[in-house]
Amino acid sequence: MRSVRFHGRGDVRVDTIEEPTCGKGQVKLRPAFVGVCGSDLHEYSGGPVLIPGKPHGITGTSLPVSIGHEFGGIVEEVGEGVTHVSPGQKAVVRPTIFDGTCASCKQGYQYCCENIGFIGLSFGGGMSEHIVAPGGHFYALPDDISLETAALIEPLAVAWHAVNLSPFKMGDSVFIIGGGPIGIGIVQVLKLQGAKHIIVAEVTENRKVFSREFGATHVLDPKEVDIPQKVRELTDGIGADVVFDAAGVEGALNSAILACRTHGTIVNVAVWEKRPHINVNDLMYKEIKYTGAALYDESAFTNVIQALCHGQLKPEKMITGKVKLDEVDEKAFQALIKDRDGHCKILVDVQG
Amino acid sequence: MRSVRFHGRGDVRVDTIEEPTCGKGQVKLRPAFVGVCGSDLHEYSGGPVLIPGKPHGITGTSLPVSIGHEFGGIVEEVGEGVTHVSPGQKAVVRPTIFDGTCASCKQGYQYCCENIGFIGLSFGGGMSEHIVAPGGHFYALPDDISLETAALIEPLAVAWHAVNLSPFKMGDSVFIIGGGPIGIGIVQVLKLQGAKHIIVAEVTENRKVFSREFGATHVLDPKEVDIPQKVRELTDGIGADVVFDAAGVEGALNSAILACRTHGTIVNVAVWEKRPHINVNDLMYKEIKYTGAALYDESAFTNVIQALCHGQLKPEKMITGKVKLDEVDEKAFQALIKDRDGHCKILVDVQG
Repeated sequence: MRSVRFHGRGDVRVDTIEEPTCGKGQVKLRPAFVGVCGSDLHEYSGGPVLIPGKPHGITGTSLPVSIGHEFGGIVEEVGEGVTHVSPGQKAVVRPTIFDGTCASCKQGYQYCCENIGFIGLSFGGGMSEHIVAPGGHFYALPDDISLETAALIEPLAVAWHAVNLSPFKMGDSVFIIGGGPIGIGIVQVLKLQGAKHIIVAEVTENRKVFSREFGATHVLDPKEVDIPQKVRELTDGIGADVVFDAAGVEGALNSAILACRTHGTIVNVAVWEKRPHINVNDLMYKEIKYTGAALYDESAFTNVIQALCHGQLKPEKMITGKVKLDEVDEKAFQALIKDRDGHCKILVDVQG
Repeated sequence: MRSVRFHGRGDVRVDTIEEPTCGKGQVKLRPAFVGVCGSDLHEYSGGPVLIPGKPHGITGTSLPVSIGHEFGGIVEEVGEGVTHVSPGQKAVVRPTIFDGTCASCKQGYQYCCENIGFIGLSFGGGMSEHIVAPGGHFYALPDDISLETAALIEPLAVAWHAVNLSPFKMGDSVFIIGGGPIGIGIVQVLKLQGAKHIIVAEVTENRKVFSREFGATHVLDPKEVDIPQKVRELTDGIGADVVFDAAGVEGALNSAILACRTHGTIVNVAVWEKRPHINVNDLMYKEIKYTGAALYDESAFTNVIQALCHGQLKPEKMITGKVKLDEVDEKAFQALIKDRDGHCKILVDVQG
C-alpha cells in the first residue's frame, strides 16, 4: 500500500509498504482525509522532534514513520473483542498513546504521559491507504459528520481542552494571541460557550479574516495598535479574564501579561522553539496564573464530536485546500512553509 | 525627632525631622522594633526602585523617605473617629497603601493596586521615633505578643498569603526554593497547616540550619544533589504538589518545573532583577500552573496575628540581630550585603 513517510528533516516520501493486518483488540481503518498540522511542519522543517530517532519507548517505532495524526476514515475490519465500532462505519482516531505507568498516568493525567506517543508521529499514521491500531483509539462517527470534518476533530479537541482547562465561563472576555488553526479553533469553542468579547491579535491578513469569520469580536494588529491598552479599553479598563497564547512569541506573551486582568489566567497552547524571557514581576503583582494546555483528554475529544453532531461547531471553512498523497511534499509542506498565511488547514485526500 | 531616611542608592542617614501630628482618623505610634527587609536592601544597593523619585501617586511623598515597613509599637495618640486602637496599646502596622480606584482595586484585589504604596517606602516609615498614618493601617496586638515579634508579622503575612493563594492542602508535599526570611516563613506556615514533606533547596549553611529548625523535613543543596530527581524520590516518584520560589534564580526555577508534579502549582514570591528564560514547554506538557503571590490581603495579616496569639507560630528565632537607629547603615544594610547568610532577620531597635 502507499504511505507518506517521514525519513528525516525535509525528507517526506510516498513509499510502498506492507499493508498492516488487524489483530485481536485492533481496528483496521481506511483513512479518508488527513489534516496537516503545525507539528508536522515542525518535524519537516526542524525535526525530528517528536518523531523518534530511536525506537519509541511505548510503540517501538523509529524512522521512517508514516505521518498524519488528524484524521478519520471508514472502518474496514475489527479484531476480536472490538464492539464499539463496526466495519463500514465512519470513525475518527484519537492519536495519543500513553504508557499508563509514569507519574502523570498514575495521577490520572494520561494525556500528559511522560513518554507520550502519537499515531502519525511515533506510530504509523493516517497518510496511508490503511492503518491498524488498538481499538481504543477509534470513535464512531454518525453519518452526517463528513470525513473532511472528521479531520478537524483532533485540532478542535486541542482548542476545547485549552478552554476547558482554563477558568473561562460564559460572559468572560478573552484575548487570543494568534489566528492560526488552533487560535481559530479556540475562537469557535469560545463563541459556542458564550464569551462576551473574543479579541484576537494577528498580523497576517488571511488569518485576520478567518478570525472574524469564525467569531472574533475584535481583531487587533500588534503592528498597528498598543495591544494592552486596546484590550483594556475593550474590557472596561480591567483586562481580559483569560488569555490563550496560540503563537509562542516572547514579545506577544509579555504584552499579554499587561492585557490580562489581575487574577486572570494565561493558557499557553504554543510549542516554543526558544525559552521566552517572561516578565514574572508583572505576572506576580497581578497574581496572574500562567499555565499550559497539553493536548486533550478523552472528554475533549468526545465533546467536540458531540458539538459537531449537534451543529454547534461548524468548522468546515477552516479547510482551505486538499492535496493527494503524492502532492504532500510540494503542495502541503512546502506550500505551508512558503505561505503559511495563505492557508488555514490543508487536508490530504488519502484515497483520492 | 530622629528618623532613618533613604536619600538615594547607598545613602541612608539618621536625620532630625519634624515630629508628625495626629489628625482626624489617624493614629500616632511610637515604633519599637523594625525589621530590615530584602526590599530595603534592594533599595539600598540598586534603588530607588519602589521608593519614589517623584511624588508618589497616592501619598505625594518623594525622596528622602523615612524607611522601615515591618514594625509595631505603642499607640501614642488616636485622632477623632478612631476606636479600634487606644493610646498605650501595642499595635502592628500593615504598610500597604491602595488607591481604591485602579483596575485591581475595582476587582477587590486592593493589595494588587496598580499604584500601590507602602508606609516605609512611599510614605514615612517605622525607623522613626514617631509615625502618623491613617487608622486603618493599625491592628491592636494582645500584650503577650512581644514588640520584637510584631516586627515579624509583615514578612509572615507574605508567607501566609503565598500559601493561602496556592492550592496547598494538608498532607501535600511542598518544595521551597530558598531558605531566606520568606522561605523560612513559608516553612513555618506549611508546618502549621500540615504539610507532609517540606523540602527546601538552599546553598548556604546558616540558612540550611534555619530551614531545619523551623520545620523543613528535607534540606537539599543543589550543588550536591540533582534536585528534580531527589524531590521525585521523596514524593513517591510524583513530584511536589506545590513549589514556592523564594529565590528568583533562573536555573532553580527551571529545575523546579521538573521537580513539580503534573498539574502541580509553582508560586513565585521572589522579585526578579532580570526576566528569566522559562521552560514553557515542560510547564505546558505537565499542565503546571505558575503564578505569583503579591504581598498579602488583610486576612493574611490578621490570620498571622491570630496564629501568633495562639502560639501556633513561634518565629522569634528568626531574629538574629538588633541594631540602634544610628547603626542601621553599617550594622544592618552593609552587614546584610556583606554576609547575607550570617543573618535571618535584623531588627532596628528604634527607641534603644
